[in-house]
Amino acid sequence: MGRVTLADVARRAGVSLASTSRALNGQVASAATVERVRRAADELGYIPDASARSLRLRRTGQLAFAVADIGNPVYVEMMREIESVVAAEGYRLVVSRTGDADATLDLVRDLNQGYVDGLILSPLRVTPALVEALEQTTVPTVVVGRLPEGARVDTVLADSEGGVALAVDHLIRTGARRIAFLNGPVDTTPGRFRQLGFREATADRTEVVTGEFHAEDFTIDAGYAAARVMLAADEWDAVIAVNDLVGIGILHAAHERGIAVPDELAVIGIDNTTLADVCHPGLTSVDLGAARRGHKAARLILARMEDGDLPPRAVRVAPSLHERGSTAALAGAARPGGPAAVPGSRRVR
Amino acid sequence: MGRVTLADVARRAGVSLASTSRALNGQVASAATVERVRRAADELGYIPDASARSLRLRRTGQLAFAVADIGNPVYVEMMREIESVVAAEGYRLVVSRTGDADATLDLVRDLNQGYVDGLILSPLRVTPALVEALEQTTVPTVVVGRLPEGARVDTVLADSEGGVALAVDHLIRTGARRIAFLNGPVDTTPGRFRQLGFREATADRTEVVTGEFHAEDFTIDAGYAAARVMLAADEWDAVIAVNDLVGIGILHAAHERGIAVPDELAVIGIDNTTLADVCHPGLTSVDLGAARRGHKAARLILARMEDGDLPPRAVRVAPSLHERGSTAALAGAARPGGPAAVPGSRRVR
Repeated sequence: MGRVTLADVARRAGVSLASTSRALNGQVASAATVERVRRAADELGYIPDASARSLRLRRTGQLAFAVADIGNPVYVEMMREIESVVAAEGYRLVVSRTGDADATLDLVRDLNQGYVDGLILSPLRVTPALVEALEQTTVPTVVVGRLPEGARVDTVLADSEGGVALAVDHLIRTGARRIAFLNGPVDTTPGRFRQLGFREATADRTEVVTGEFHAEDFTIDAGYAAARVMLAADEWDAVIAVNDLVGIGILHAAHERGIAVPDELAVIGIDNTTLADVCHPGLTSVDLGAARRGHKAARLILARMEDGDLPPRAVRVAPSLHERGSTAALAGAARPGGPAAVPGSRRVR
Repeated sequence: MGRVTLADVARRAGVSLASTSRALNGQVASAATVERVRRAADELGYIPDASARSLRLRRTGQLAFAVADIGNPVYVEMMREIESVVAAEGYRLVVSRTGDADATLDLVRDLNQGYVDGLILSPLRVTPALVEALEQTTVPTVVVGRLPEGARVDTVLADSEGGVALAVDHLIRTGARRIAFLNGPVDTTPGRFRQLGFREATADRTEVVTGEFHAEDFTIDAGYAAARVMLAADEWDAVIAVNDLVGIGILHAAHERGIAVPDELAVIGIDNTTLADVCHPGLTSVDLGAARRGHKAARLILARMEDGDLPPRAVRVAPSLHERGSTAALAGAARPGGPAAVPGSRRVR
């Protein structure tokens, strides 16, 4: 049997995790609750090792997760995983929007006011001022995303370039020769590295004609607007969208113009969100491991809270491709041996 | 020209809202920022009336919004509206999950530790202990949802019964005679009042056969699982889902059984979320005014922070029906004069 966790004690005592944490940490709690929790902890042989050592840091019982767009399901998936990890250690997760670069900076600077015990941050844009603020904050912080080389902050990285390469390979194998990339704003971290991935993956493919387009934001509406322009100007065999939301915008625009997906146009999204199953046809999508990134970020922040002197760590999560209806065989595709076998591919509900 | 707001000052000064708020409130800010903000405020003739009076309460610059499921787009819509209102007054919004009844209670009790200046709460389940905690907290609080008669807390209410009645009327007018209601858990506020609405709206319709079913949660997966059972057991002309997520679960289950929507089965969701446009066919849905509820909740909390002695207020938001492809005319429907005219109906992108 593994280590007895705070969650085990809470279950045994029949009270919430937050109450259990408070009762054991000597914070405000009713006498009856304290009594029940202590008895349960004794009976189970609970040893609050990490908790005891980090007591001086556990001032609020709250951890923050700050993201660009709470409405994007990729962040919801990440959040659920973070929450499940930190809740088992008695923390409540609060979520906020990073907003623009200025607001992100304010958010990090406000950490020192002590409303939360730690921050997991997924910024769209990384400025030198932000890196400096992150290095100087006294509150443990983990960044989900890319920071400049040498930044002294724990990070969890997606492999955007590898992910886009999976999409390009899949499209070429199913016969696409004219492939467009519909990016979001290029002055963002995802915009920059997904574009880089597209260029690297197509650089040596002389048989492929490529094009690059930009949506003004990472949303369905912005993707739809950009796709209307893109589809009116030229004919493409396939489009890779910078994320699933933009991919759904492309499906709308294609439907409106009477372009059949996937027969006349294949579409691939990125992030493999629940929306990829909800839309029609289902959206083939590259999974950059949002849930796993959330899991690793939560583990990193807990470790950092326990020991602030650890050297900064960078953890990388591998991508996979998930086929759905938006990329069945293209008309005229050469498909020796039937459908291309894609490692890790599956149908997700 | 209307009153000059904090947002106007921020725009003129070219700094973020949070920095503007801090500069004007004498909180930590750089000397240059303070100078720029003060000059902008002077030039525009900004009078910080509400801010000045509520300064004693503006300790953190943060407001909290707590909901059952951050992954449900109806809350995202509400959140966006709340954020746009409170950000214009210099507040940052933090979002958290209410969790179970115990965790909701912890959350309200923790308010007194002062991490936020106010709370907008949308609880799924309301216990007497929660009402008591809400009445006793020293931090301004607004509930989006129904509280027992006489509770001394500001509330914003949806008209669930009226909304379900719109759905029932629409289905009957398009020819449905066997109408099922696929509810979520009945021990929740939405479960209880949407069920009540279904019973009231069908009570006098002797021409209609009804059935009630339950999903274990308000999610796509739970809706899909319950719909599989429901569709295997009996034939229905139409189903009203307790929300859009459950409605999408029904679309999946119908598709799997080869039941054509809307020709063999009409489906109506509730909440009119962005998902209703993403799924196929588009989901006809009852809008319970999430954005407007968010707007009103934000206004109530700002008013309450300014004057804690106001009598409690209850604000109600009216429903409307939005037709999409999941409820085109049923086979054999009597439709005198063409498609039924539904007040407030429109196609939403």
